[in-house]
Amino acid sequence: MKEEELKQFETWQMRLSAYQMALALIGIDKETVAPEDGTAYRDERTAVLDGEYYRIASDPAIYALLKRMKEDETLDHDTRRAAALAALYVKDMSHTLCVPQDEYVAYGRLLASAYPIWRKAKQHNDYASFAPVLKDIIAAKKKLYSYRQSCEDIYDQMLDDYEPGMNRRIYDDFFEKLTERLVPLIQKTVRAEQIDDSFLYQNYPVEGQKAFMKDLLQYVQFDPSWGYQNETEHPFTSWTCAGDCRTTTKYLPDNVISAILSTVHETGHAWYRHQIDPKYDGTILAEGVSSGMHESQSRLCENLLGRRRSFWEYNYPALQKQFPAQLGDVSLERFVKGINVTRPSLVRTEADELTYPMHIAVRYEMEKGIFNGSIPVEHLEEAWNDLYEKYLGIHAETAAEGILQDVHWADGDFGYFPTYALGSAYASQFMAAMEKQIDVDEALRSGHYETIMTWLREHVHHYGCSLTNEEILQKAAGESFNPAYYLQYLEEKYSRLYQL
Amino acid sequence: MKEEELKQFETWQMRLSAYQMALALIGIDKETVAPEDGTAYRDERTAVLDGEYYRIASDPAIYALLKRMKEDETLDHDTRRAAALAALYVKDMSHTLCVPQDEYVAYGRLLASAYPIWRKAKQHNDYASFAPVLKDIIAAKKKLYSYRQSCEDIYDQMLDDYEPGMNRRIYDDFFEKLTERLVPLIQKTVRAEQIDDSFLYQNYPVEGQKAFMKDLLQYVQFDPSWGYQNETEHPFTSWTCAGDCRTTTKYLPDNVISAILSTVHETGHAWYRHQIDPKYDGTILAEGVSSGMHESQSRLCENLLGRRRSFWEYNYPALQKQFPAQLGDVSLERFVKGINVTRPSLVRTEADELTYPMHIAVRYEMEKGIFNGSIPVEHLEEAWNDLYEKYLGIHAETAAEGILQDVHWADGDFGYFPTYALGSAYASQFMAAMEKQIDVDEALRSGHYETIMTWLREHVHHYGCSLTNEEILQKAAGESFNPAYYLQYLEEKYSRLYQL
Repeated sequence: MKEEELKQFETWQMRLSAYQMALALIGIDKETVAPEDGTAYRDERTAVLDGEYYRIASDPAIYALLKRMKEDETLDHDTRRAAALAALYVKDMSHTLCVPQDEYVAYGRLLASAYPIWRKAKQHNDYASFAPVLKDIIAAKKKLYSYRQSCEDIYDQMLDDYEPGMNRRIYDDFFEKLTERLVPLIQKTVRAEQIDDSFLYQNYPVEGQKAFMKDLLQYVQFDPSWGYQNETEHPFTSWTCAGDCRTTTKYLPDNVISAILSTVHETGHAWYRHQIDPKYDGTILAEGVSSGMHESQSRLCENLLGRRRSFWEYNYPALQKQFPAQLGDVSLERFVKGINVTRPSLVRTEADELTYPMHIAVRYEMEKGIFNGSIPVEHLEEAWNDLYEKYLGIHAETAAEGILQDVHWADGDFGYFPTYALGSAYASQFMAAMEKQIDVDEALRSGHYETIMTWLREHVHHYGCSLTNEEILQKAAGESFNPAYYLQYLEEKYSRLYQL
Repeated sequence: MKEEELKQFETWQMRLSAYQMALALIGIDKETVAPEDGTAYRDERTAVLDGEYYRIASDPAIYALLKRMKEDETLDHDTRRAAALAALYVKDMSHTLCVPQDEYVAYGRLLASAYPIWRKAKQHNDYASFAPVLKDIIAAKKKLYSYRQSCEDIYDQMLDDYEPGMNRRIYDDFFEKLTERLVPLIQKTVRAEQIDDSFLYQNYPVEGQKAFMKDLLQYVQFDPSWGYQNETEHPFTSWTCAGDCRTTTKYLPDNVISAILSTVHETGHAWYRHQIDPKYDGTILAEGVSSGMHESQSRLCENLLGRRRSFWEYNYPALQKQFPAQLGDVSLERFVKGINVTRPSLVRTEADELTYPMHIAVRYEMEKGIFNGSIPVEHLEEAWNDLYEKYLGIHAETAAEGILQDVHWADGDFGYFPTYALGSAYASQFMAAMEKQIDVDEALRSGHYETIMTWLREHVHHYGCSLTNEEILQKAAGESFNPAYYLQYLEEKYSRLYQL
């Protein structure tokens, strides 16, 4: 491999990351503060930059170079990093380059047309009006994957795209265990004496919530030198590099806990990105290793830290002080119980920690059925409702609260949902390992969030994509993915909470 | 001109505007909320995009095409617009393309190195340490202009770059009149009985200022659908299109009027950009016609509206209500007098309306001397101090408050300062014409800011660059640039205020 070629690779990588940065910042701006009247103008020009990005990202000459790099045995130790990098780029590019460009463009157009149809169908609770375009998306998706000429099952390929190494065999086992053990547990909690959490849903003026948020962001050490929080309708996390991670949150005036837990969740994503070794900045190694791994970090923060008693031993006095009328009489005990209440509900994004994975189990079954042909698109709504009945004992009255609630399928995202449940399971596995080494309760109670983040940096975050998720699990937890920790955690927690 | 070539031009213009948009948004993000730790990463990638932008903006094939378009007599009425556009692009590009690229790069590097030297020199009040690099900048500037092979004087060319049509002859006449009539007026105000404005400089908690700002932004109709205000150390206005204009402001906890007037100033720039005919969006015609014209709009808003009694007849009650302890006993009369106080001072950006143009006169004399060789760089500081003594009767004790106060020269910006004074003069000329047609006081008093903005749209804003500043003045005011209105306004206003 010539010096000159390595230089060409570096230049290409720099350009690629420059467009990624521009598109990330344009996206953040659009979602947070950009004035509405400029949307069409900006979108048109963003599409031009997107096109340039695509051209760079799928440059056939670079693809050829990367393939040579990947195979080059003569690269010395330091440039082996370049070879590993090249392998990751090659995988991504091969999936793009195998598809004829006009098909790609047509698919983009199909998705663009599907979004307003989905939105209108959701508004009108009319699944039938969405079904035809969903059918087209599924057909297009199959066509796109067919170009890969892989001998793997198509849905397995989709699962692997979001979570390298995963397939139906592993997920089947995971979701079977979940269903087997959580469905009866959920039923028991429904029959048990209910816990009062009504105090969480009073009038909580947003100004007061914002005042508390300042303290909370300090507590979770989301430092202004590398992080910035804004407000949006749908909270998200985005970034340009380790030193620049942005999150958003949403305040509800009649719910004190929503913005708090969403903040802890999003700053979990931000911490992950922040702690990836900065030497990987601007390369494909600086991405999170998989969707499930990213979700594991946000869910670990939200559920395993943010809903924990010791977290609130430190933070509850400040919250009470901010809202004396609403929380003055609510003990720490009652508050912590309240924020851990479980109750079967229809909408995934509002589900509690225990019922959440069953929402995912529904979607996993549906996606398998879609791609093995066992559930025709026309019958998806019935299948959806049947599964909710079976797993959670409830039934959507409207499509908006049922099959049309999520945008993912309208966006062509199949195989993504399972990573949400997987993330929670990874989180429990990491937490079990972490608690063998550090005193998590003591760290939370005494305001030393950095103790936990440091453990995560060393055992999970800093690798970026330089290891696989399997390798990270092995290093951090000493074994492969094992859902036992997650199930045990949920069973113990909710049995205790509901005195089952 | 072939259809295909016009298409090529459109595509080029779209690409150019896409990069302009990206760079504008990256710039706004950097100045407002971007976390510090990501600066180096982002700057490096911004430089890549800047480079791509430069390559597109100076594409020799497009330059040749634009020259043909500009000359093409066969273009029909509608495409004549394309010919006019082409002429503007050709002017810009010719200035860039005549310079050898390595000279351009070297100049960029020189400026990048000059900035920290200027900052350090300012911190240490040490002009001598800045003088050598300033000398280099001046030499480089002369070299860059020499490539244009123009027979015009070099400083005239610089003046024309910021303000097409302007030169030393017109500016000399302008600044002579200013000096002749304002210096004695300023001296009289100094000797007159002073006006109390100390109530403006008490403790004004920023939260209260922000609450009032919400009302004020509504009053000046800076609508969230097309505008957004943020906070920065140095207030500015930036935009992507007519439907997307961003401003910033800065709150001082011991000054109630600074953020207010800076907001009225910046929203003046924003209104100008917002009201340029949106059909010019994405083309060179959507720029303001000149620096002076842009400044005329911000200064008209800040000084001729924002310091006016009728403006405060509407707004003062809300401000008093926000700060009862500080302003409860201050009458509207006293308040309006207070915000119009004049007092010679050393720092341009903090100068009042009357003394401000003399700060500019100093800089104009200096720049002329620099380029005609009459003031050697080594003697600039003395010359500066002498001129301040002559025009304002005061003398800087430190270079930071004297010759090193502005960044412009360290940035290579010569010929820009005069447009600040010119803007104020244009503003008075427009205002005189406007007041013949609409009742400005009535509009301000009754909260109908749109009456004034509509007049400005029709007579100044909507043209964008499709007319020259001379043509706009002719249409709006019925005559060429005429400083008489400005002088008359200042003399009348300050004679009355100080009972001279």
